[in-house]
Amino acid sequence: MSRSDPRDPPGPAPDPARRPDVTMPAGDLPPDEFRRAMHQAADLMANYLEHVHEYPVVPPISPGDVRRALPPQPPADPEPLDRILDDYRRLIEPNVTHWNHPGFMAYFAVTGSGPGVIGESLAAALNVNAMLWRTGPAPTELEEHVCDWLRQMLDLPPAFRGHINDTASISSLLALAAARERIPNVDIRHRGMAGRSDLPPLTLYCSDQAHSSIEKAALTLGFGLDHLRRIPTDERFAMRIDALEAAIAADKAAGRRPVAIVATIGTTSTTSVDPLPAIVEVARREDLWVHVDGAYALAAGICPEFRGHMRGLADVDSIVTNPHKWLFVPVDCSVLFVRDPSLLRRAFSIVPDYLTTSETGVTNLMDYGVQLGRRFRALKFWMVLRAFGVKGLQARIRRHCELARQFAAWVETQPWLELFAPVPFSTVCFRAVSDGPPEEQDRFNERLLAEVNRAATVFISHTRLRGRFVLRLTVGNLRTGTAQLEEVQQRLLDARRRLTEGRQA
Amino acid sequence: MSRSDPRDPPGPAPDPARRPDVTMPAGDLPPDEFRRAMHQAADLMANYLEHVHEYPVVPPISPGDVRRALPPQPPADPEPLDRILDDYRRLIEPNVTHWNHPGFMAYFAVTGSGPGVIGESLAAALNVNAMLWRTGPAPTELEEHVCDWLRQMLDLPPAFRGHINDTASISSLLALAAARERIPNVDIRHRGMAGRSDLPPLTLYCSDQAHSSIEKAALTLGFGLDHLRRIPTDERFAMRIDALEAAIAADKAAGRRPVAIVATIGTTSTTSVDPLPAIVEVARREDLWVHVDGAYALAAGICPEFRGHMRGLADVDSIVTNPHKWLFVPVDCSVLFVRDPSLLRRAFSIVPDYLTTSETGVTNLMDYGVQLGRRFRALKFWMVLRAFGVKGLQARIRRHCELARQFAAWVETQPWLELFAPVPFSTVCFRAVSDGPPEEQDRFNERLLAEVNRAATVFISHTRLRGRFVLRLTVGNLRTGTAQLEEVQQRLLDARRRLTEGRQA
Repeated sequence: MSRSDPRDPPGPAPDPARRPDVTMPAGDLPPDEFRRAMHQAADLMANYLEHVHEYPVVPPISPGDVRRALPPQPPADPEPLDRILDDYRRLIEPNVTHWNHPGFMAYFAVTGSGPGVIGESLAAALNVNAMLWRTGPAPTELEEHVCDWLRQMLDLPPAFRGHINDTASISSLLALAAARERIPNVDIRHRGMAGRSDLPPLTLYCSDQAHSSIEKAALTLGFGLDHLRRIPTDERFAMRIDALEAAIAADKAAGRRPVAIVATIGTTSTTSVDPLPAIVEVARREDLWVHVDGAYALAAGICPEFRGHMRGLADVDSIVTNPHKWLFVPVDCSVLFVRDPSLLRRAFSIVPDYLTTSETGVTNLMDYGVQLGRRFRALKFWMVLRAFGVKGLQARIRRHCELARQFAAWVETQPWLELFAPVPFSTVCFRAVSDGPPEEQDRFNERLLAEVNRAATVFISHTRLRGRFVLRLTVGNLRTGTAQLEEVQQRLLDARRRLTEGRQA
Repeated sequence: MSRSDPRDPPGPAPDPARRPDVTMPAGDLPPDEFRRAMHQAADLMANYLEHVHEYPVVPPISPGDVRRALPPQPPADPEPLDRILDDYRRLIEPNVTHWNHPGFMAYFAVTGSGPGVIGESLAAALNVNAMLWRTGPAPTELEEHVCDWLRQMLDLPPAFRGHINDTASISSLLALAAARERIPNVDIRHRGMAGRSDLPPLTLYCSDQAHSSIEKAALTLGFGLDHLRRIPTDERFAMRIDALEAAIAADKAAGRRPVAIVATIGTTSTTSVDPLPAIVEVARREDLWVHVDGAYALAAGICPEFRGHMRGLADVDSIVTNPHKWLFVPVDCSVLFVRDPSLLRRAFSIVPDYLTTSETGVTNLMDYGVQLGRRFRALKFWMVLRAFGVKGLQARIRRHCELARQFAAWVETQPWLELFAPVPFSTVCFRAVSDGPPEEQDRFNERLLAEVNRAATVFISHTRLRGRFVLRLTVGNLRTGTAQLEEVQQRLLDARRRLTEGRQA
């Protein structure tokens, strides 16, 4: 029997009366139509990336504007792709926040680089679900392989095995679930956590600068937010070891069971670095799991000169870093490295009858986490690694850090501004200082932020540090250059003049 | 200040000695290079989808083959995109399992349809993270809007609010976390589950046919696998209400606290349907949450004639269905509907200082789940809904069900085969029967499966039902037609002849 044409003509409908349109094919788009529309899309994508700087970074629309422009009911009949792509161009593209804009310097700036966009597009056409090796041999092996490339780039020992998740939120959750499963003789996988007299409250430790995803993991896994100790930080926003030790001692004295410490390399507000060697020492003494959240800053570890911030990394239990943050891979791509992957399997592997396979000795990626469905994320990462090369990625990260240092140096030339935190990577926290009461200073900085962002040619964000409202600029976008930083500087000076005049008037 | 060129020339490197190549730009691909390579990729994608039927469904390679073809070390220098795309074409494309192949009738067959592939590609270029309305206004509103379109298509009451997750594994986990949070006076979010004398063991209920993702949610959330009651099913593989009631009564009598029932519409092995109205009645009496896993089959609910299987749906608390399964959206796209979304927010909302915004009354999608990072998944779904229209989607689902019914009717004409379960949707469970002992019959069916799949022109899978090895064929791919079903039939007949001759020899 020969293989059939993929566009098989539609068979008879079960009930002719219900058949809405006998002329409509029941297959995919005809190949020539897909080809034409995909080339149209390629031009839309290329035009977008070439001209993204002409958009306001944040679109000047109000909540509800987009929904009001959409038909309230779903479309009954098929529409031609030309019209859909027109609507995309008219209604969607202008109304996203442009994370690819050179002026995007808020949160952590990211770039879905060209090679990554191409890889993601190809992966969409393949539409593989690599839950099992058998259901995606190349995707499974490429995922293991690029994670091993990244391991080498970060100079991690070969024991670390990586796999790709969607987000650091999930990667950290999986790591802490493995830590929970590692507690001897309690078998939480089977017996759960509630209603057990043999299980004391379980506690986790992170700094007061740790990311909200650690809180989400703590509440999801049933530790409870009250049992996540947010350890105070020192003047550099790094976890205080004395406070960590005191918290662990207090928990043990109260009969609670410490489970894991989450150390951050590059916290979200200031990109501060927790003292990993000392944390590892405490963890060894107390038999705790150490998970490192390096979602953003660990990428800098591909440059040897930044590895000083990462001392102790080889001795931890698990590490997350997101190539979709600062290695220019389109969202989503989060790599979780675990030193003993059998603990992830112990926590998560469930093989139902309908997913048994005969292959032995293969990696079935579904065994390493919550999600059964897995996109082919390794493809885009592979393409970025090859198109830029390690040297090219290093050059980009170095350049971003240099741009941030230049901006920080400018802040220090301005007597009315202060740097609020050290700048180990590419993020700068700063604020205007004045003689007024703290709340008034905060309001002034809030207005300063609004003024800088008002024209939407640049977009910076804020945070709170030691209770104070602080401005935050981060360089992570491949299109950002000195022009954007100079623009922020000019806008700050203009805004200060305007706001000060306003105050005096 | 004018807006700068997005390809800003690289500034001076921080340390010239470390700079690997002074001629290398530190930006993204130049626009013309991206445009050229993206058009090349568009042709690769179109060629792939046009010729996918020429590949073996499952590639004839052995574990390790792909990795052995890859350089063990990461590439130091940039490589031209032409070479990378060549390697993709040579090494990756042929070595994936071809989920888009018309002969793919294993697991649940899916299709990343043309309009969906285009949407995913555009989303990759936008690279938006819609964690907040402000960081992605159109993505946030389009997500709310297409979920509401789907709600209307399924004839669900307006109270249900949907959002998109990556997988049903996560959607079900979020629903059960909301159910856990709903238990009065225990505040698991803050106080956790371990070491509490006021918290009895918490129990969940699903049928013995429920998906492994429910087990993963139970273990992840700290309920524990031992507290997930797998209720026996009846002769149609539907949950037995008497057994459900007995299990709940036994748990209560033993001092445990029932929390939620997971009902499945379209179980993974047989696509059986749990008796939702009776389950809802039990849940109301016992004050339990009802979550419906309709990851695959709920899509059929867009056709009125299938809604008989979905009676009671309007009365449940949460529902998951995956447009990436049977609505032809590329992975990943899982919609979770919740009747009271405030419970999801109560379980998951955490707004750190660096993510506070001034907009009020907007949906910030990060509040509804674990993951902070969110891809723009609504775009591909919107494009599929419009390109096919509701009528076109209905026609495709009807056709798949009709093809499955035709195959089941053929099985019934074969005295050596038996249908092993009813066929409510597009999945057929069947096996060869003979006089031998059950284990021998199982082995015969295993060999039959291997023979059918041997040439890799078609790919069906298996499951176990009532302890027996059963073959499983599912139609869900837009390229599958009668030719593929006839090929399976012919291969079954040939295999039977060969295997029977072998046995007699």
